[in-house]
Amino acid sequence: MRVLGIDPALRTTGFGVIDVEGPHLHYVASGTIKTEAVDTGHLPGRLKVIYDGIREITTRYSPTCASIEIVFVNVNPQSTLLLGQARGAAITGLVAAGLDVSEYTALQMKKSIVGHGHAKKEQIQEMVMRLLHLPGLPGKDAADALGLAICHAHASKSFAAIEKATQRERSVTAQYKGGRVR
Amino acid sequence: MRVLGIDPALRTTGFGVIDVEGPHLHYVASGTIKTEAVDTGHLPGRLKVIYDGIREITTRYSPTCASIEIVFVNVNPQSTLLLGQARGAAITGLVAAGLDVSEYTALQMKKSIVGHGHAKKEQIQEMVMRLLHLPGLPGKDAADALGLAICHAHASKSFAAIEKATQRERSVTAQYKGGRVR
Repeated sequence: MRVLGIDPALRTTGFGVIDVEGPHLHYVASGTIKTEAVDTGHLPGRLKVIYDGIREITTRYSPTCASIEIVFVNVNPQSTLLLGQARGAAITGLVAAGLDVSEYTALQMKKSIVGHGHAKKEQIQEMVMRLLHLPGLPGKDAADALGLAICHAHASKSFAAIEKATQRERSVTAQYKGGRVR
Repeated sequence: MRVLGIDPALRTTGFGVIDVEGPHLHYVASGTIKTEAVDTGHLPGRLKVIYDGIREITTRYSPTCASIEIVFVNVNPQSTLLLGQARGAAITGLVAAGLDVSEYTALQMKKSIVGHGHAKKEQIQEMVMRLLHLPGLPGKDAADALGLAICHAHASKSFAAIEKATQRERSVTAQYKGGRVR
């Protein structure tokens, strides 16, 4: 499984790609998509940079699934609207590439990486560096994106374990119903 | 010039296509993209329906430019966020098709179609029907989208007129500077 994590924003969208092999996580790539060079007054142009950036990443790294942060309303409603549009462009880039997109809150990501929901940016960078055996601290936006990819890897393992346990239970029930278990 | 107008929303996105030949406007097509059939809890799936719908329309009707409504913050911040994401997906579909996207507020559209900004939905439907010589009233979402396309046609004409006037002025200035005009 190769997971693409996305931390969406209008100005700087972080991305991180990891490979998941059983319990092992391997770093593949990470970075940011920046829209600052575009005329900031022209929203469609900025959304195009985000969409094109996501498509370039999906083409280059061929992830098998994607994980994106659930954004929340801002104190400034206008910022909320802009962030929403940026996230819409990012998700559209992912689904246009045929990827299944899972959504996680920042709280879920922090719990999955650091162990609690009050983690600071620096703690996420530190833990992402350790979990992926990186030679140095990743940038903040890239660290969040890698954190989202790791969060999805952990969640997928939990889901798989739950499914396995449920199947075992089902098979026990089936055996019992079949009268093979006394 | 063939204009595609888009009235974006998460549940129902209206679209309208018109041809502009000098002062004449011709109706080409209109309708809606609905995301209700999709699991409403799965936002990426709904954004994919909007994006795919826009791509289908641009492929089928080959517009030369697009016109989309500028949305505003809602009383409910969560709705603002959802509307933003839907608009982001719609704009992304347009720019991915290589279209130049112009943005107009509902006020600008109403002024351009009805003559004032306080027009009700029914008045827009009525005026769109008249301006495009339709046999009956278009639906409300489609009427707004056609209104946005007409608004862009009107604005483009004004821009062209301004440019022409500016060029004439420039050429007069150039002649004067060259000493050919006493």
